[in-house]
Formats: sequence, structure tokens, C-alpha cells
Amino acid sequence: MNKETSVRLSKYRRIIQKLKIMGMEKVFSNNLGDAIGVAPALVRKDLSSLKIPGHKRGGYNIDELISEMDTILGKNRQMDVIVVGCGKLGSAIMGHRGIYDEGIKIVAGFDNRPDHVAYKGNIPIYHINKMEDFIRDNNIKIAVMAVPKFVAADIFRIMLDCGIQGLLNFSPAELKDINGKCLVNNVNIAIMLENLFFYLKNQQELDSSARLIEENNMLM
Amino acid sequence: MNKETSVRLSKYRRIIQKLKIMGMEKVFSNNLGDAIGVAPALVRKDLSSLKIPGHKRGGYNIDELISEMDTILGKNRQMDVIVVGCGKLGSAIMGHRGIYDEGIKIVAGFDNRPDHVAYKGNIPIYHINKMEDFIRDNNIKIAVMAVPKFVAADIFRIMLDCGIQGLLNFSPAELKDINGKCLVNNVNIAIMLENLFFYLKNQQELDSSARLIEENNMLM
Repeated sequence: MNKETSVRLSKYRRIIQKLKIMGMEKVFSNNLGDAIGVAPALVRKDLSSLKIPGHKRGGYNIDELISEMDTILGKNRQMDVIVVGCGKLGSAIMGHRGIYDEGIKIVAGFDNRPDHVAYKGNIPIYHINKMEDFIRDNNIKIAVMAVPKFVAADIFRIMLDCGIQGLLNFSPAELKDINGKCLVNNVNIAIMLENLFFYLKNQQELDSSARLIEENNMLM
Repeated sequence: MNKETSVRLSKYRRIIQKLKIMGMEKVFSNNLGDAIGVAPALVRKDLSSLKIPGHKRGGYNIDELISEMDTILGKNRQMDVIVVGCGKLGSAIMGHRGIYDEGIKIVAGFDNRPDHVAYKGNIPIYHINKMEDFIRDNNIKIAVMAVPKFVAADIFRIMLDCGIQGLLNFSPAELKDINGKCLVNNVNIAIMLENLFFYLKNQQELDSSARLIEENNMLM
């Protein structure tokens, strides 16, 4: 399963969960396709490639779907995560309710000034020096990074050494594991905002050239 | 220019800026391709579609590239943004240094309890009731949302009414403008973490089937 399929699967699951809460028992590929904006054929392909059986003309049984998906998605396992860098952003992530709703558990935070972090809650905060041992001892595979740019690469190197395989990186440094052993999701808030501006500017130019064409057409 | 191209363009710009600081004057499509992990042909296609001229066998002039890109990307204009929902996450975003380094300016924050927000700084915080007037009066086009899930859709509707065209949404609600007038970038931290776990689990399964095949081969 590639990354795109796994993202779609996770979206399907979310929709199906909502339908279940609404009391429904069945769902069709059309419903799922509409909800996440893809063709029903792609929904069927995704689900059949995962060996989730559909029933002819009857759609998919919601309970079956959820249970199959949870097995495939590893939802039944505990999802332990550490947060490295507990400044304002790291602390906000540690206190972010949305995370816990999804069964993810932040088991520890790390900072170079563990006594000065903004987060006040039940997650233990350790000195960054303890990160390496903690990752190894607790078999942690996924981390969130919210450190300043200038230390990001060094911390990333340590993470790779001790076996981190997935990183959600909020630091402004673009990180990448050239050995391909760790999947990095770089979440650069500034770049994302910039991209909205670029997109907007382009739309406006497209709009104004469209208007120009219209005006020209009216003249003809 | 589609969204993917604009994201790549923004990445190219960042690389080129670094090369310039390192004292380089020219860059080749190969360099840019390697740096962001795409084929050199795609780099050339992106740049030529934007009418950025390359010099035969001489690559691209870095100063020319930056100036052309800044015009295309709208970097020369001020980029005003508002943050709606100034809880822990919204406050952390308002205080996030990385944003200001890129020329983005957060001009105001909005919250239903403006006297209780965590952010302490120079950005004014207003009651959410003032958001609509502020957006119209100041011609704001881009917003960041970090509100609880249950109010996200209502606030989004008001934003659409008063002309917001780009939204960076950190609330756990998946938002989408069905009229296509506003581009929404949903940043769901829980989903992103979940996806890392799904990806990891899949990798492990691929690895173990690969091992199984190897073992079988050895038996043969």
C-alpha cells in the first residue's frame, strides 16, 4: 500500500465511523467517493486491493469495514509518540485534544530546559540528553519535532541512529532521511501560508486574463 | 499554475536562496531536481512554463531566478494573515518565529475569550464577533484557524461570506469549500501521526513478506 492509499484509507475510516454513529449499517463506494472527492471506482479498487469484500448491489457492511480497516491500519495497537522540543508549539501539540481522540498516546516530551516548558499536564518532560535511551528502551518508532531550526538536523541524526522510523517535523528545517529508513512529514507552517498566497495570486491572474478574454470577445 | 507546481516553485526558491547565500551565481536543473527529489526535466518544464529563461549549458542565473520567482510568487507584496482561535495552538502559531522570517505578517488574532488567550505579544487580539468586519475592512484573504471542532464549520461559513480565499485549518474538522472559492489546507495533526503509523505498519509487512520470499528462495 503506498502513502496515498493509506491516506485515503484513513479518510474512508473516518467517514465510515461517522456513518456508524448515525446508525447506518451499509455504505456504498459512491458515498465514500463523494465524501472524500474521488471516483467510486478508486474506492472499490482501494478496498479490493486490501481484500475488503464488497457485497453485490449491497455495498459494504460498515462493521466489517471498520474491523478490517483497523487491522490493516494497525489501529488496534497502541500508538506511542514522543514530542521533542516543548516550546510553545511542542507544548500546544502535547495539549492538543484532537490527538488523543484518535488513540495516539504522547508518552514523553524532551527539551533542553525541561523545567521551563510551557506544557502543564500529565506527560513527563525529560532533558533532551535522555531522548536516545528513552527511544531505545521504549521501542519508540514515531516522533514529533518542534525544535528551533539550528538544532533540528542534529536531533534528527540522533533519532535515525536509535531507530525512529516516522517523524512529524514542525521545525522550519526541511528534513529528509537519505537512507529511506525514516519517513519524514515536514509541516512548515510558513511554507503552507506562503503557498496559499501564491495560489491566490495565480488565481487572480487567471481571473483577470479570463476577464480580458471575455472583454475581447465582447468587442468582436 | 496548479497547486503542485506552486509548491515546487516555493521549494526551488528556498534552495536557490541558500545557494545564493553560499556565494553561488548559477544553478542547474539537475541541482534543483536532486535537492527536492524530482527529475531535472520537470524542473525545466516548471521554469519554462513560468517563462523563466535558462541559458544553454550555462544553467540559470540565480539573481534572475529569484527576482522572477518573487514576482510570480507575489513575494514582494505584504502577506497579511489573521489567526482565528487563540488557544494553545493558535497562540503558538502567533508566536512562531519561522512565520515572520518568511515575510508573513499576522495582523490580528480572534477568540471568544480575547482576555484569556495564552499569546503574549504585539498582535492585537479581538473578540470573534469582530472578525467579519475586520476581514472586510482590511481586505484579508488568508486565515489560519485553530478553533475547537464543533465551531469550525460555523466560523468557516462566516469566513467564506466575507471573502476569505485561503485557509490553513488546524482544527480537527475537515473543511472544504464546495464552491471552490476558498482553498483549504487541512492540517490535522492526529491524522498525520496516524498516517505515519499506518505507513510504518505496512513497511513492516512488506519487509516480512520480502524476508519470507528470501527464505523460500534459499530453500529452493
